[in-house]
Parts: sequence; structure tokens; C-alpha cells
Amino acid sequence: MTYTSINFRQKLGLFDERWAPKVIAEMNDYQFKIVKLQGDFIWHDHKDTDETFIVLEGDLRIDFRDGAVHVATGEMFVVPKGVEHKPYAEGEVKLLLIEPRGVLNTGHEGGERTAENDVWI
Amino acid sequence: MTYTSINFRQKLGLFDERWAPKVIAEMNDYQFKIVKLQGDFIWHDHKDTDETFIVLEGDLRIDFRDGAVHVATGEMFVVPKGVEHKPYAEGEVKLLLIEPRGVLNTGHEGGERTAENDVWI
Repeated sequence: MTYTSINFRQKLGLFDERWAPKVIAEMNDYQFKIVKLQGDFIWHDHKDTDETFIVLEGDLRIDFRDGAVHVATGEMFVVPKGVEHKPYAEGEVKLLLIEPRGVLNTGHEGGERTAENDVWI
Repeated sequence: MTYTSINFRQKLGLFDERWAPKVIAEMNDYQFKIVKLQGDFIWHDHKDTDETFIVLEGDLRIDFRDGAVHVATGEMFVVPKGVEHKPYAEGEVKLLLIEPRGVLNTGHEGGERTAENDVWI
């Protein structure tokens, strides 16, 4: 049988749009999504799950109501469930997100920044 | 409040031993573990869960009974649950593993290659 690894750089080269997560793999009921960010997002939280951010390239800031974390290339951060956060990227950031299948990028906030879910690339 | 990112390179610099996964973060009931590999491991599987391999540095080969996959720096692969596999690294590989809390490195095989579980770094 043929087995194939998933290359982050190759997958990131397949699209340019920002704030639109693309699923590249699943582990049990969790999904691995790559996404490109630049600029400001909206405040939101995920009531039922933690959310993992791994920065593949760039400098991400995640704002919280009481502080912020800077996540650089080769770093990760897990946002605990229920904690309001707002990603911000001054330059473009290429990100690997890990979270359960079905989680929306805007949590339960809805609105125009909500990306289509479960889009594979 | 102070929030701190987790830097893979910094964490990898804290130990030299091989085949001994160290937990660096948790997301819900899943753990992120870093591990250094070189040489051959034993055949094993994980009956209840998929297992994610992300190569931070090096060239990993995962052998299956009917093939193999090569996973290079910046690549990932998810081994499906119940599938027998054997990691092999000719040179040293630095790896990020993601799997549910409680999973042993040797599955249910046991033996001298079984590393202590749930060791944080």
C-alpha cells in the first residue's frame, strides 16, 4: 500500500485566502487545519473545547481580556476552552490549528468572519 | 495575567535521551509530546486511537506491514488506530507526537522499550 506524508509548505502553497481554515488531516475526531492570517480577527471563544495554535511561519499575537501571548515560528499555544481570545497578525502568519471536528473559527459569535467549515485541501 | 508560548527548540534542548517522550502541553484529553529518535523501534499498534507524528527535524520512516511512509522536516502523518507500525530513524529525528493522555509508546506490547508515561518537561 502507498502511504503519503502531509507537507505543510506544499499545502500552504495551494491557496492565498486568509482567515479560511483548510483541513489537511484527521486524528480520531480531531482535525488539523492550516490557515493564513493577517490583521485583526474578532473576539470569540469555544465553549466546549481547547484550541491549539502552532505557528508554522510568522509572528502571531493572541489577545486575551487580561493579557496576550506572542507565538513565533516553531512555537505553540493552547487556548483553554471558554476563554475569550482574538488572534492578531501584523505580517502574514501561517498557522496549524488543531481542534475537534465541527469547531467554527468564530466560535458561537457568527457573523461575516465565519469561514466555511470542514473544507479540505 | 501572563501567557507563555511553548517553543519546540527550547524544549528539545532540555534533554538528550532518545525514545522517551516528554509532555509539553495538553489540549482537552490529548497530549503534545516531544521525543528524539534514532535507530529502530519495535512493532506495535494502538488499539484505541490514531497517533499523529509531526517531524520537527530529521527524516523519519514509519514501516507498516505492507509499506512505509517517509516523513521529513515540516511534514506530518497520522497512523490510524489498530495499524501495526515501526518507526525508524537513520539519523536523529526530533518529533512532535499528539495522542490521547495515557497512550504508551509501545502500545500494548510492553517490554524494555516502554518509556515512562506522562513525563512533563
